[in-house]
Amino acid sequence: MGEAPFALLARDGSARRGRLSLAHGVVETPCFMPVGTAATVKALTPADLREAGAQIVLANTYHLWLRPGRAILEAAGGLHRFMSWDRPILTDSGGFQVFSLESRRTLDDDGVTFRSHLDGSEHRFTPENVVAFQEAIGVDVAMVLDVCVKLPAPREELADALRLTTAWARRSAQARRAAKTALFAIVQGGLDLALRERSARELVALDLPGYAIGGLSVGETREEMLATARHTAMLLPPGKPRYLMGVGTVRDLIAAVDCGIDLFDCVYPTRCGRNGRAMTRAGEFNIFNAAYAADFSPVDPSCGCSVCTTYTRAYLAHLFRSKEMLGPRLLSYHNVALLNDLMHEAREAISAGRWAALREQFQPVEG
Amino acid sequence: MGEAPFALLARDGSARRGRLSLAHGVVETPCFMPVGTAATVKALTPADLREAGAQIVLANTYHLWLRPGRAILEAAGGLHRFMSWDRPILTDSGGFQVFSLESRRTLDDDGVTFRSHLDGSEHRFTPENVVAFQEAIGVDVAMVLDVCVKLPAPREELADALRLTTAWARRSAQARRAAKTALFAIVQGGLDLALRERSARELVALDLPGYAIGGLSVGETREEMLATARHTAMLLPPGKPRYLMGVGTVRDLIAAVDCGIDLFDCVYPTRCGRNGRAMTRAGEFNIFNAAYAADFSPVDPSCGCSVCTTYTRAYLAHLFRSKEMLGPRLLSYHNVALLNDLMHEAREAISAGRWAALREQFQPVEG
Repeated sequence: MGEAPFALLARDGSARRGRLSLAHGVVETPCFMPVGTAATVKALTPADLREAGAQIVLANTYHLWLRPGRAILEAAGGLHRFMSWDRPILTDSGGFQVFSLESRRTLDDDGVTFRSHLDGSEHRFTPENVVAFQEAIGVDVAMVLDVCVKLPAPREELADALRLTTAWARRSAQARRAAKTALFAIVQGGLDLALRERSARELVALDLPGYAIGGLSVGETREEMLATARHTAMLLPPGKPRYLMGVGTVRDLIAAVDCGIDLFDCVYPTRCGRNGRAMTRAGEFNIFNAAYAADFSPVDPSCGCSVCTTYTRAYLAHLFRSKEMLGPRLLSYHNVALLNDLMHEAREAISAGRWAALREQFQPVEG
Repeated sequence: MGEAPFALLARDGSARRGRLSLAHGVVETPCFMPVGTAATVKALTPADLREAGAQIVLANTYHLWLRPGRAILEAAGGLHRFMSWDRPILTDSGGFQVFSLESRRTLDDDGVTFRSHLDGSEHRFTPENVVAFQEAIGVDVAMVLDVCVKLPAPREELADALRLTTAWARRSAQARRAAKTALFAIVQGGLDLALRERSARELVALDLPGYAIGGLSVGETREEMLATARHTAMLLPPGKPRYLMGVGTVRDLIAAVDCGIDLFDCVYPTRCGRNGRAMTRAGEFNIFNAAYAADFSPVDPSCGCSVCTTYTRAYLAHLFRSKEMLGPRLLSYHNVALLNDLMHEAREAISAGRWAALREQFQPVEG
């Protein structure tokens, strides 16, 4: 334990290409992880995800803890078998969700007690039981329980949260029992670079297999997010994977790869897909716009995914207008495939020393 | 035109095995047709439908006329290209939907004027323009515009509707222009066997390529439905396909094949699929029942579909409880695959002279 399952294969500027070897397979980085909060990437099957190029999916400890719960997941033979996904899974620790509950949770130094958003039942997370849960359900990457602060916040509050996040990361590391689950810590500190430095330094000292940058993409400006991500990434060891939580637009992924980030997750492509927002290499558009009702071109003419090679914008526009489930399903698939393809292109470009040229293609053109 | 594209391959009792040759391919009968009202079988792709054994899908003239409309469908190159389904399509005429509008429609001898349920706009169906629409969008089987009566109804009202249905079927036959679209007439007459006989006699005289039995599965008892279907089926020419509209449960399909019916359609399997009702060879069950939350067996242990070979009842129960779209999608797929498999078994049994044995397996066991 503590051994990094990560190989850095190439660099081009700050952008990195790597390979993360996990219990259920290899993840080539940079890599976007589609979000399957409740043991399903909304509307998509594991077969869809494989076809769309997903190497790893994310699920959420908070949601799975409450439903279906540890007993069902263990009886199923683990989360992989429960959801029939045989590639790697990373679970978020639930820290972000629990702290979002605000009035429904109370924090103490040992852990956090909260009431379920589903039925009001009381539950308690500690660094130890969150690691134990993730190991019990057999995920490839477990995240430590962190303390999330709503921004903007006074510096003392951020510093207190940071102190606890570090203490909890240390307890999480000591709680590990299953070698097949890699534990990642989460660097916090808001937009305060000095706090980020302290958080990174303390967590790097734990020598964990990977590090996430948390507490971003929560309402700050894009410039603040990217500046903080870039600064924080440079504080992390080159030989460990870096995971920027909550990033998922085309231009943010490109910008964050340029900051030296390796892993990303975000509900953005599937949430957009459900709501009719199409992501393309040339920008985004709303499928409900009148222009698309008679547009017989693919969602993204430069995309080779099975939705773009099979269906037209006009058909998707019809499905969304008719409130047909197939619309969200097809557009979610495309949006996910697009980000996976984009990361594939990024990996190729970094290996070939063409990263700057690829990056320049993605100027913001938002519809 | 008037040439029946149907070959009767085998009989076993009243049950028939046949082959319907249509512009987009061959349909082996008995056959269940999944319903894709608005140019999509809800939640499923054409690839899913092929994999689930669907040979032909149904769409609806009323819905497609209103949205996306003829101009879009013609610009797309027809309904097949619009929805990316390359096997046969049958469109219902819209008669059933228009007459369901009740206060929003007025009937005259020439046609029916109605207001859209979507936006209140006024439209008019005539036998001629309904045939022209179906031919224009390129379907394999078009249904004549019929006059549907809400049951129970006075005999005179049924007789009047019947007179008009026959007159409209004659006009529909004369309106045909596209040889690749086969026109089927619809026998009406409610539960009145004398009226059914008159309707069948008058429509059979038109020598159309196929005949449907309409006006059933609309609230009458199961015994009334089956008795009327059996009586009416026997009035139809043996060399033409017989289509019982609106039937879609396991035991009703088996019973109706036993009446000598060849084709079926119903929203039942997909509607059940969306609502958590699982269809199996041994009966139906509600996936929300507590017993299934920890049941790691397939939806139907005797089913070989990709949902039953991949997922458990426990996972589907979790998806439905979590209101995840994947639940309706997977259960719709299974329910459709089950009926397609059932019809495949029926065809094999009829050819092999084992129909009675198969029929006896499906005693009603409803959950």
